[in-house]
Parts: sequence; C-alpha cells; structure tokens
Amino acid sequence: MAFRFAVNVTPKAGILDPQGRAVEQSLPHLGVTGVSGVRVGRRVELTVEAATEAAARVVVERLAGELLSNPLIEAYAVELFGATSSTSTAEAPA
Amino acid sequence: MAFRFAVNVTPKAGILDPQGRAVEQSLPHLGVTGVSGVRVGRRVELTVEAATEAAARVVVERLAGELLSNPLIEAYAVELFGATSSTSTAEAPA
Repeated sequence: MAFRFAVNVTPKAGILDPQGRAVEQSLPHLGVTGVSGVRVGRRVELTVEAATEAAARVVVERLAGELLSNPLIEAYAVELFGATSSTSTAEAPA
Repeated sequence: MAFRFAVNVTPKAGILDPQGRAVEQSLPHLGVTGVSGVRVGRRVELTVEAATEAAARVVVERLAGELLSNPLIEAYAVELFGATSSTSTAEAPA
C-alpha cells in the first residue's frame, strides 16, 4: 500500500518568525487590512510504501521529527490524505 | 469575526523541486526506504478579521494568489481551521 502524507511544520508559539513579519509588513502596500498572526512554515508532501497505515505513520513521524523539522523551534503535524493499493501513484492528485 | 486560515503552497506537478530532491537523497543515510514523491512547499497560517467567512476567504484568496505563491510554478490550497467571535485571539491554538 502507498500512503500519501503531508507534514505541516510551523514555528512554535513565541518563536520569532521573520517571514511572517515580512508578510504582515507588506500587507498595507497591497491595501489589505484585518490580517494578523501570520506564521510561515513548511509543508512537505510524501508517499510512504508500507503494509499498513500504522507502519507508514511510524516512518513519517520519524522523518518529521528528525529531518523535516527542528524540534527546538518548530512543531509539526502529520496529515494523511490518501491511500492507494498501487505503488505507481507516487504523486498526489493535484 | 476572526477566521484562521492556512494556505498550503506546493510546487506544481512537473516543476523541479530541489528541496524535495534533497530530502529524498538524504533518506538512505537515515536508513529509510519506501519513501518517494517528496515535494516541499510552504504553509502560511493567518487570521482574517471579517464580517463573514465568505468575505474573509476573498482576502485570503487574493493574498494567496498575489503575495504568498508564484502562480507560474506553484499551486495553493486554502484551508479554514477555526472561527472565533473575538478579535483578540489572533494566534491559532497550538
């Protein structure tokens, strides 16, 4: 089975987020008001080949914690968005 | 009303994704197998103050298309994950 996951990595609360600040500061130039709390993180999508969803999640959790995020300053959330029995559909549908 | 959104920005299919390739190439060193189709994008979370969800979505869609993504090479998806009646909760719950 092939499972398609997304790992959402965001700066932890209280951690300075320069990209988010940059977005906020550009909003007045676009004439946009009423937007606040902008936080910029990463989203990593990947396909894991495994016998069960639980086994696939073990792989994703390990990658998310060790490779895709910096646990000191970032939090991550794992999201499953598809399972297929074929191994040929490594790309998620757009 | 305050609405908390996430904008997920990902490289379009067929667009070279050097970060995704870098992740894939580091997997053997971690002893991880069975992972493919890695795509690295951005996730931007923000709060929009608006009278209705529809009005808030208009603002988010505009930001997503004009500021947060490059429409030539990136696709985006907007995700609503919370609405509050207070304006003081600009930060999403962790």
